[in-house]
Amino acid sequence: MSTLITNIAELVTWTDDDQGDQSGQPILEAAAMVVDRGRVAWVGPATEAPAADTAYDVGGRAVIPGFVDSHSHLVFAGDRAEEFTARMAGEPYAAGGIRTTVRATRAATDEQLTAHVGHLVREMQRQGTTTVEIKSGYGLTTLDEVRSLAVARQFTEETTFLGAHVVPESSTPEEYVDLVTGPMLVRAAEHARWIDVFCETGAFDVDQARTILNAGRAHGLEPRMHANQLGHGPGVQLAAELGLVAVDHCTYLSDADVDALRDAGTIATLLPGVEFSTKQPYPDARRLLDAGVRVALASDCNPGSCFTSSIPFCIALAVREMGMTPTQALRAVTETGAAALRRDDIGRLTVGSRADFAVLDAPSHLHLAYRPGVPLVSEIWVGGRRI
Amino acid sequence: MSTLITNIAELVTWTDDDQGDQSGQPILEAAAMVVDRGRVAWVGPATEAPAADTAYDVGGRAVIPGFVDSHSHLVFAGDRAEEFTARMAGEPYAAGGIRTTVRATRAATDEQLTAHVGHLVREMQRQGTTTVEIKSGYGLTTLDEVRSLAVARQFTEETTFLGAHVVPESSTPEEYVDLVTGPMLVRAAEHARWIDVFCETGAFDVDQARTILNAGRAHGLEPRMHANQLGHGPGVQLAAELGLVAVDHCTYLSDADVDALRDAGTIATLLPGVEFSTKQPYPDARRLLDAGVRVALASDCNPGSCFTSSIPFCIALAVREMGMTPTQALRAVTETGAAALRRDDIGRLTVGSRADFAVLDAPSHLHLAYRPGVPLVSEIWVGGRRI
Ligand SMILES: [Zn+2]
Ligand SMILES: [Zn+2]
Repeated sequence: MSTLITNIAELVTWTDDDQGDQSGQPILEAAAMVVDRGRVAWVGPATEAPAADTAYDVGGRAVIPGFVDSHSHLVFAGDRAEEFTARMAGEPYAAGGIRTTVRATRAATDEQLTAHVGHLVREMQRQGTTTVEIKSGYGLTTLDEVRSLAVARQFTEETTFLGAHVVPESSTPEEYVDLVTGPMLVRAAEHARWIDVFCETGAFDVDQARTILNAGRAHGLEPRMHANQLGHGPGVQLAAELGLVAVDHCTYLSDADVDALRDAGTIATLLPGVEFSTKQPYPDARRLLDAGVRVALASDCNPGSCFTSSIPFCIALAVREMGMTPTQALRAVTETGAAALRRDDIGRLTVGSRADFAVLDAPSHLHLAYRPGVPLVSEIWVGGRRI
Repeated sequence: MSTLITNIAELVTWTDDDQGDQSGQPILEAAAMVVDRGRVAWVGPATEAPAADTAYDVGGRAVIPGFVDSHSHLVFAGDRAEEFTARMAGEPYAAGGIRTTVRATRAATDEQLTAHVGHLVREMQRQGTTTVEIKSGYGLTTLDEVRSLAVARQFTEETTFLGAHVVPESSTPEEYVDLVTGPMLVRAAEHARWIDVFCETGAFDVDQARTILNAGRAHGLEPRMHANQLGHGPGVQLAAELGLVAVDHCTYLSDADVDALRDAGTIATLLPGVEFSTKQPYPDARRLLDAGVRVALASDCNPGSCFTSSIPFCIALAVREMGMTPTQALRAVTETGAAALRRDDIGRLTVGSRADFAVLDAPSHLHLAYRPGVPLVSEIWVGGRRI
C-alpha cells in the first residue's frame, strides 16, 4: 500500500540526480514523497505528486532522512557520572577508565545488557536516529565480547567487533593481541560485520592495529578504526594505507594526514560529543572539507568519554565549533554517515532508498543548529511506517 | 488528596533546614516525597515516609525541582534561521536584527502570537521548565507592547515590559524614551510585573536605562536589566546601584563590576545559549561564584541571538564552558532562577513549596550534564499533578 506524504515545507533528499527540474535538487521546498512497500517510490514538488492509496499531511514541517549514527558503544553496564564530574573539575580523560566499565559489563547478565541497549536505541530513535552501528569492547574476554555482539545484533546489522578497545588488566599486550586475532576473532566474526581497533597511546600501537585489522579482514570482517583522538599519531595514515572506508575521531591531524585521507578516499568521522565531554579542542571539519575529505559525524555514545545519544547535539556542535554549515552537518549525519558504513540505501530520501525519515517540528533543517538542545524530532518513520 | 512519591533514587530539595538527620540535606538519596493540595507536604528518607492516600513509584529515577527560566522573549513571530546560518559562517551578531522580528510580530494577529507562545511554553515544559518569565519587546508601539504582554500573561505571572528593547526605526531615541516612560508604560503596567531595558551599545545607554527603570518603579513595576552582553559597560554597575534583584547576561565584567554585584546582593543571570548561538566567549561563572555573587542561568529564548528553549542545554554549557559543577548549574536553574524572580515557592522541593517537579530518566541530576543534548526529562508535575 502506497502512502503520499504531503505538505512538506522542506524535504531533504540528497539526490544528485539532476533531471533539469526541481526534483533534481538535494533539498526541495513545498514537496511531497510517496512511500511504497517500505521504500521511497517518488519525491518531487507537491504540485506534481502522483496518486497513492493513502495520504498523510505533515502540516508544513520539514522531512529529513533518519540519522545514521555510524559510531556507538551501547553494550555496557554501569555509570561513570562521577568520573565525568571530576573531569569537568579538571581531571584529564584517560583511556584506562574503560576498565571501570569492563568490570560492570562482565558482571551484567545478557538480559540486563539487552534491556540497557534497547533503552538507549529507543532513546536514539526518539531523537531521529534510524540506523546505529554498535560496537563491542567492554567484554575483553571471548565470552564477554561474543555475548556483547550477540546483544548488539538484536538491534542492528551494523555490529562491530572491538575486542581491541584496551588491553585487559589480566593480559600482556602480546597475549591479548594473539587472543583478539585468534580464538576471540573466530567466535566474534559470527556476530559482527566490522572490526575496529582503538589505536592510541595507552591502547594499541600502529603495528598492533595493522595486525588486528588484517586478521579481521582475513576472517571476513571489514576494518574501521579509532585514531588520532588524544594526540597526533600514525593511526590515520594506517587507515589510509589500508584503504579503510572510514577512520573515526581525527581530532589531531597533520597536513600529511589530511592528504592521505583525501588520496585514499577514506571518510573522516568526527565525534564532537567526545570533545565536549572531555574538554578537548574540537576537530577542524572545515579544514577537511576544504581539502576534499568527506566528513561524517557520529555520537560515539559511550559511558566514559561521551554519553550523549543525540545526533542533533552533534550537529549543533559541528556548526558552532567545527566550521560546518547546518546543511553540511546534516549531510554528515545522514548520507555520509551511511557511506561510512558502506550503505547507500539509507541516509537519503531518493527513489529506491529505505523510507527511514524524521519529521521535524520546524520548517527547515536549519533549525537543528538554530535551536540547539531542543528535541525537534516529532515523528520517526522506519521502513515507511511511523513508530 | 495526598500522594506519596516513592522509590526516588535522588531527590533534589535544596533545603538548608538541617534538622540533624538526612532530611536536612539539599540532595537526598533513596528518598520519598508527599504532595498534598499542590504543595510539598513532606520530604525525607524513603524508610521514614508517612502514609498518604495514593502512592506513585518513580522506579529509581531522580526527581528535581521544575526549572525556573527567568529570562525569555517568547512573544514574537517569524524566523531568523537564515541570519543564524550567516552568523555561523562569520557574520557578527548585531542588536539591530531585533527589528526584523518587530516587523513580523506587528504583522501577526493576537491569535497567532498566542498559539506560538503556547507552542513554545509546551516545548519548554516537556524539557522540564515549569515556570517561565516572558518579556515583551518585539512590538515597540503602545498597542503592540500591550498586546504582547496580554498574550504573555495567559501563560505566566512573570511578565516583563521590555518596550526598551531597541529604538524603533520611526522614532528618535529621545522620543522613544519619552513614550516608554510615559503613555506606553502606563498601559503596559496593567499587564506586567517587571520592567526591563536592554542597556548596550546600539540599544539604550546607562542614563536612558536609569530613567526607564525608575519610571517603571514609579508605576509599580520591579526593574531588571540586560547588561554587559556585547562588551564592557556601565550597565552592571547601574544594576547594583539600583539594587536590582538580578541583572542578565554579564558576559563582560570588570573586577569592580563583580564587587558591585556582590556588595549589592544582585544575582548575575548568565545566558550561555546566547554565547553558543552568537559564537561569543562565555561568561565566567566560576569567577562570580568565587567572589560570592549568586549565579542564575536562563535560556534567553528568542529568535535572534538564541533560539534554544532547553534548560538542560544551558546546564551542559555552564558545566563545559563556564566552570560550574553540575550541582551548581542545577541550583542556578531552579532555586537561584526563582530567587531572580523574587520567588521562594518554586525552584525547590521543601515543605510548603509548590509541587512543581521533573522526573529524570536517570538516577542522578549529574546526568543533565553527563548526557548533553539528550531529552532526559521523562515526567513533569505541576502543582502536584502530572501533565
Ligand atoms: Zn568510540
Ligand atoms: Zn534577553
